[in-house]
Amino acid sequence: MSAIPEDFIQKTAKLSEEVTRPFTGSRKIHVQGSRPDIRVGMREVEQTPTHTDAGLEQNPPIIIYDTSGPYTDPAVEIDLLRGLAPMRQDWILERDDTEELAGPTSAFGAARQNAPELAHLRFEHLHRPRRARAGRNVTQMHYARLGQVTPEMEYVAIRENLKLDALRQDPRYARLLRQHAGQSWGAAIPERITPEFVRDEVARGRAIIPANINHPELEPMIIGRNFLVKINTNIGNSAVTSSIEEEVEKMVWSARWGGDTLMDLSTGKNIHETREWILRNAPMPIGTVPIYQALEKVDGKAEDLTWELFRDTLIEQAEQGVDYFTIHAGVRLKYVPLTADRVTGIVSRGGSILAKWCLAHHQENFLYTHFEDICAIMKAYDVSFSLGDGLRPGCLADANDAAQFGELETLGELTKIAWAHDVQVMIEGPGHVPLQMVKENMDKELEDCFEAPFYTLGPLVTDIAPGYDHITSSIGAANIGWYGTAMLCYVTPKEHLGLPNKQDVRDGIITYKIAAHAADLAKGHPGAQLRDNALSKARFEFRWEDQFNLGLDPEKARSMHDETMPKDAHKVAHFCSMCGPNFCSMKITQDVRDYAAKLGLSEDEALKKGMEEKAVEFKKTGAEIYRKS
Amino acid sequence: MSAIPEDFIQKTAKLSEEVTRPFTGSRKIHVQGSRPDIRVGMREVEQTPTHTDAGLEQNPPIIIYDTSGPYTDPAVEIDLLRGLAPMRQDWILERDDTEELAGPTSAFGAARQNAPELAHLRFEHLHRPRRARAGRNVTQMHYARLGQVTPEMEYVAIRENLKLDALRQDPRYARLLRQHAGQSWGAAIPERITPEFVRDEVARGRAIIPANINHPELEPMIIGRNFLVKINTNIGNSAVTSSIEEEVEKMVWSARWGGDTLMDLSTGKNIHETREWILRNAPMPIGTVPIYQALEKVDGKAEDLTWELFRDTLIEQAEQGVDYFTIHAGVRLKYVPLTADRVTGIVSRGGSILAKWCLAHHQENFLYTHFEDICAIMKAYDVSFSLGDGLRPGCLADANDAAQFGELETLGELTKIAWAHDVQVMIEGPGHVPLQMVKENMDKELEDCFEAPFYTLGPLVTDIAPGYDHITSSIGAANIGWYGTAMLCYVTPKEHLGLPNKQDVRDGIITYKIAAHAADLAKGHPGAQLRDNALSKARFEFRWEDQFNLGLDPEKARSMHDETMPKDAHKVAHFCSMCGPNFCSMKITQDVRDYAAKLGLSEDEALKKGMEEKAVEFKKTGAEIYRKS
Repeated sequence: MSAIPEDFIQKTAKLSEEVTRPFTGSRKIHVQGSRPDIRVGMREVEQTPTHTDAGLEQNPPIIIYDTSGPYTDPAVEIDLLRGLAPMRQDWILERDDTEELAGPTSAFGAARQNAPELAHLRFEHLHRPRRARAGRNVTQMHYARLGQVTPEMEYVAIRENLKLDALRQDPRYARLLRQHAGQSWGAAIPERITPEFVRDEVARGRAIIPANINHPELEPMIIGRNFLVKINTNIGNSAVTSSIEEEVEKMVWSARWGGDTLMDLSTGKNIHETREWILRNAPMPIGTVPIYQALEKVDGKAEDLTWELFRDTLIEQAEQGVDYFTIHAGVRLKYVPLTADRVTGIVSRGGSILAKWCLAHHQENFLYTHFEDICAIMKAYDVSFSLGDGLRPGCLADANDAAQFGELETLGELTKIAWAHDVQVMIEGPGHVPLQMVKENMDKELEDCFEAPFYTLGPLVTDIAPGYDHITSSIGAANIGWYGTAMLCYVTPKEHLGLPNKQDVRDGIITYKIAAHAADLAKGHPGAQLRDNALSKARFEFRWEDQFNLGLDPEKARSMHDETMPKDAHKVAHFCSMCGPNFCSMKITQDVRDYAAKLGLSEDEALKKGMEEKAVEFKKTGAEIYRKS
Repeated sequence: MSAIPEDFIQKTAKLSEEVTRPFTGSRKIHVQGSRPDIRVGMREVEQTPTHTDAGLEQNPPIIIYDTSGPYTDPAVEIDLLRGLAPMRQDWILERDDTEELAGPTSAFGAARQNAPELAHLRFEHLHRPRRARAGRNVTQMHYARLGQVTPEMEYVAIRENLKLDALRQDPRYARLLRQHAGQSWGAAIPERITPEFVRDEVARGRAIIPANINHPELEPMIIGRNFLVKINTNIGNSAVTSSIEEEVEKMVWSARWGGDTLMDLSTGKNIHETREWILRNAPMPIGTVPIYQALEKVDGKAEDLTWELFRDTLIEQAEQGVDYFTIHAGVRLKYVPLTADRVTGIVSRGGSILAKWCLAHHQENFLYTHFEDICAIMKAYDVSFSLGDGLRPGCLADANDAAQFGELETLGELTKIAWAHDVQVMIEGPGHVPLQMVKENMDKELEDCFEAPFYTLGPLVTDIAPGYDHITSSIGAANIGWYGTAMLCYVTPKEHLGLPNKQDVRDGIITYKIAAHAADLAKGHPGAQLRDNALSKARFEFRWEDQFNLGLDPEKARSMHDETMPKDAHKVAHFCSMCGPNFCSMKITQDVRDYAAKLGLSEDEALKKGMEEKAVEFKKTGAEIYRKS
């Protein structure tokens, strides 16, 4: 008999049709690795054939990187009340370096678990937390440095390759694989991602695989500038709005549209329980900012924060399975006054909490002084650092200033310490930066932080567009991704104005998928242009359904097309509403090419033969090149 | 008694409340030039004061470049049936180099004017067209090269300066005017735009002022890379949808949100009459692609096009007042086969029409062979060339290829010819280009076309986001604007999918205002950051209404804020819905600064004094820095 009230179950157990309906024309496939339990999910988009005068030309399926996890797998029955299957459980157990604990070892975690008044909110099927056995280090970086290729590393390698090896052997893809040379700014992306390459990048600290041993439901992914650019999404309730079931649904929604990782930034009540529900159902790495919860525990009084309380919070969350922690250890006392002359001071919540603490105690930031202690916790669960940019600029005027760059140097110093513990690290970056100053951020990060992956918010390249900051920031994001940022933290249209609703989350994610993909293309990531080429070919050939299905948001593309041409017949029409049936440049070009083909000329020959002969014959056949369809 | 039916008048005479409602907190101001009839409209945004413990601190008004023309001037009574006042009429007459014609000199224009069956569609108060007197040249470039500063040039100089001279003398703006150094890539933007600088740029061909002598209603603006980056919007009915009154309303709507110029791309019936209604009511330059109408005249059969028919169309439109013509004279016969191997062939409508004509006749493009004849028409009315990129790439795969760059070289050759006639020229550019290949487009254009202004569509930096191509293209647009593009042709979310509705037009314009402004900031355009700084300060100080009013779309920002915090009281709340009332980083930072001020320390002193003493006092006062509001 469940302790959870029926109405809560009703609301929570059932995801809305909106977040679960299948993508048209797509199916889930799995690529198996060296062992049966390494099965990497991908999305395959079927294409319709092209109608040519010579008959049907088959168009091959296109493989898409898939963040949606089991939620789009018809073979999997989803039960939010039980959580996802713990795919990584065996991998973790096989390593034989962890122990199962009797229960949470954090005071707060234990109290929440045992409080009867929380039974109605609590996830029912809690598993007992695991921790590294004494003296052991369970981070992916540690294994990598020992030369071990973990199943997680192999999983990631398969996932990044998107079956490109097989596609290269398949003649149907030959033209679609054509791609422009990239400009990689010193990144070294191989033609083929091997498990060994993944291991090497993780060992060097140039990439991280956030994967807490207490989050076995996770589908491993990698963050590093020699891999596909990733995007992070944020959810979180606040004192003002939102509830548990809304947050869980937002997490699934984020996975659906392409969020690679997700940060739970909740600041309201029941943070602990909300997080448990999210983690047990999350196929992606989950990040948090533990100082938010620590502050709740001292009723919002920053000056009352202590290392002991913060430490307990880290352990509480690590034992739930949080995969990366934003830690604002770079907000050093000496940098705080450097923000006094700024237009917008300190805009990071974590940064302002710690600045307040530093001023109140006139002591160095306790996250900085206890950094080695934090590392000890991180490596016992494999939680990755996301070293927070608490002093990031909140407007263009404050970009690239002494406070921001001073903190960045400190983050580099801390990176070295974390690496000495084999703890994985990424570095958070701004923020608000005008376009001409974006590259300096990337270059300085690579130098000061020894190529640890950069994880930036935007940056927004202007401050004058509240309501459109997903766009102002996507411009900076695409550029900084091109320059080498490994993960882009999304921004929604509601940034600066309010909490995002589902539509805002979707808009933010699609916008950031655009920025990340534009960066992959610009860097020359192998195979990145394949999907662009396939969609362009579909567009040119009026294969409307294929064009929709290959896009980032098939539903929106289809509905926009329907607005002016709602009839189904128009989906196969050889024209579109922009120009009408008798006036279409794509049709004209296609017809010109068809004509050349009809004359038996290959495109190359046509080129060499010159145009005179063709012109004569063209007129002879009546200069009628429209196919009356 | 009007010949126009009552229901048409009902629909046309009255603009909807949606396109005319005033922007909150703004008022129209005029800056007068050297003569009383040079009155340049600008928008001034009032700001509320900042509440400090020392009392109210006044925040100065912010001046915004205003494209909305008389439509936002409460002193002007709008009557679409009569059209706007012909502001430039006296300037044109004073030059005494034009003559009034008895009526249209194009056969088509005369026929349409005299056809009784069109009376119900025709704009009633037609003015007689003017033309240069025999042997005279009436282009702004011609005057510029003669050393004459026209009223149009002075108007433009005042408009570009945005009262910056006065603001620099006013201490209230001192902090707001702080700005980062730009990276101008060789552009030379002066601290102050003088009429003489405008004249010199126009004389050199580095900038154009599109201003047909038959469009006296126009408020002059300038397009060149040493000026503010401009945006173009497109409207146009097609055989499938739209009507005259919709197009006029879209034009006013475009002006409202910030469109600097507007192209009428209509391809359906009554193109001539629609254009007249638009021109007589348009405060911005209007461009067209005359080949579209010419094609209508031969029932869509490209091979039936002739120079004579095209010539008549140019004169027809020039005498109506079109300010710039897209002329695809660079689609030379020799380039057409270079497109055969492309993924998406020729995607420009004009380009495909001319390619079809070239193939059908096996002759050189008649726009190329008759280019000097076209120049003769252009200089008789001061129509500017927008040399069309008929071979622009329609997808990433086709970017920067031989066809595209071959055409660009030809456009450079044609630029020289046009300049020999003192005809103003801008160059159209792509299209679809991956991020790392955008700069090559700009550099090549500057070199091949001798710094004539570049006018690009996007470029879109990926092809995989139908439904979001305003965003994919804004990324390329911001970058190419930074590199030196003078005007960005907007793209709406409906690109590739259907005809934009009003909401799409608004989304497209705001997105392109973002790109253009990001480029201005990146180039270091003087004063560009002022508005960003003012908005950021308002944001930091929780002056919500000022934040909304200073933004590109106050209505949307306000409505988004209202979604989570609808009460009016929240507009003055010192927190927002993101974090709730007791947890706000901006509030914490502001309070820290207030505290420093209370201690009587200037920010500089605080910085020097170090933090120890402050911390002690801070704790003494109870570490209570929230103002209970």
